[in-house]
Amino acid sequence: MSRSVPETAELALLLEVASTPTPGNVDRRREYPDLRFEQLLAGAVGTRQGFALAAAGAPIGLAIERAVAGMSDQRAGNTQFGGVLAIAPLAAAGGRDELALSPTGVETVRAATTVEDTVAFYRAFDHVDVAVPDPPAELAALDVRRGSDAEPAIRERGLSLGELLAESAAGDEIAREWTRGFPRTFWAADEIVERDGAVTDRAAQVFLELLADRLDTFVITKHDRDTATEVRRRARAVLEGAEDPDALAAELLSREINPGATADILAAALFVALQRGVRP
Amino acid sequence: MSRSVPETAELALLLEVASTPTPGNVDRRREYPDLRFEQLLAGAVGTRQGFALAAAGAPIGLAIERAVAGMSDQRAGNTQFGGVLAIAPLAAAGGRDELALSPTGVETVRAATTVEDTVAFYRAFDHVDVAVPDPPAELAALDVRRGSDAEPAIRERGLSLGELLAESAAGDEIAREWTRGFPRTFWAADEIVERDGAVTDRAAQVFLELLADRLDTFVITKHDRDTATEVRRRARAVLEGAEDPDALAAELLSREINPGATADILAAALFVALQRGVRP
Repeated sequence: MSRSVPETAELALLLEVASTPTPGNVDRRREYPDLRFEQLLAGAVGTRQGFALAAAGAPIGLAIERAVAGMSDQRAGNTQFGGVLAIAPLAAAGGRDELALSPTGVETVRAATTVEDTVAFYRAFDHVDVAVPDPPAELAALDVRRGSDAEPAIRERGLSLGELLAESAAGDEIAREWTRGFPRTFWAADEIVERDGAVTDRAAQVFLELLADRLDTFVITKHDRDTATEVRRRARAVLEGAEDPDALAAELLSREINPGATADILAAALFVALQRGVRP
Repeated sequence: MSRSVPETAELALLLEVASTPTPGNVDRRREYPDLRFEQLLAGAVGTRQGFALAAAGAPIGLAIERAVAGMSDQRAGNTQFGGVLAIAPLAAAGGRDELALSPTGVETVRAATTVEDTVAFYRAFDHVDVAVPDPPAELAALDVRRGSDAEPAIRERGLSLGELLAESAAGDEIAREWTRGFPRTFWAADEIVERDGAVTDRAAQVFLELLADRLDTFVITKHDRDTATEVRRRARAVLEGAEDPDALAAELLSREINPGATADILAAALFVALQRGVRP
């Protein structure tokens, strides 16, 4: 019996957190006191019903809100918001016969979003606290952290979810993926498909390559650009054999530097790779 | 948004395999080359639809078969058959308003089983190879490993699933739980509820206590009674502080001695504990 799209989406989140080492992030050998491995398991379990909505063609904002609501039934708060946001349009594209799990398919999902999706997306922030950049002063009424309180301002502005995310694409890696047809996600998925060995081993290697490739926008938001630049440099050193990945993982954990955007891309890539036949 | 019964059942399987150390078994820090951590994640994901059937009041044999079929979509074959068999009646008792998640509730589920449940239970063995004791020669036609081929012999004999499992109770820990109202499961659940700390840490401790308490029937089946007795003695030594649990875990892994029945009880206990309010 083969896995459904929502099952696969949930499994992608589970395999992401199981992949080790993913320096700075929770993995099956490392956790933060306030963000435990078991909380990411519970978070992943809670997402499936939202992904089922996405795969069935429900409005994508609603699917995201449902997944985040389900995810939030554990004590750590936000465990996988970015992963949900990244996987939801892929689940929509992969779950519907008239679409395809491809850049074109997700672009169709993006182009079909409306202001109702934006409203539902904001409602998702009612369920958990998410670290995001402060908006410019003139857009304070549209701070996503206001959640459903922002609804009147959202409706007045009238942006679809696709348009909203396009505005954030410069500073948010997942918004950038949404806007550009998920280029890094599909690249990483191909890499996972083409390699051998345990899926989580392949994924951990691809995580390092993603991290060495571009600055992690979550690290920029939570720390600063210098920290993100250091993380990229250190990831490159690991790939060159000049640093030990486990030592880097331990150090970033102790400094609480977690490249969460890269983890979200990896989760999305695992979803695509599983859909393309990779089998644990 | 709080977890449904099927979500909780799946999460229990995930938390069981995440608990570490559980000497001899796969946990998040140890795996066998042919039974990887990621395969148990995929196995757990596949079980949920079967548990949903159980919680909705479908015939329990059908629910078990569906859970095992979903579980089997990974490359290791049998990952959590015993866990499914243990949790299914608890999910049925916990999911239905007219029952309760208690010894009485699961006894009601057991007493209501029919020969159709037995037939469906045998069909579950079509999906995976499971290590079970050889039946007596006169019952060879009823060897569960025959799967659906045994259907005529099952119907001729006419035992309900509850009756069938009662016959196996002496040599199979899960069958014993079914037959006696899940005494060790409810005991272990209470222990998990009453302790503090991460759920997987509590569960790992309770695993050792279960292992020190009774011989693991899966170890008896796969190895012999002496090996099971040694495992129990060594677990007692860990509890007394005379052995290091991680060293024991490494040794049992290298000898391929996995106390799977105890893991199944732990998964069932985690289900009960989560239903009673334990929150990761």
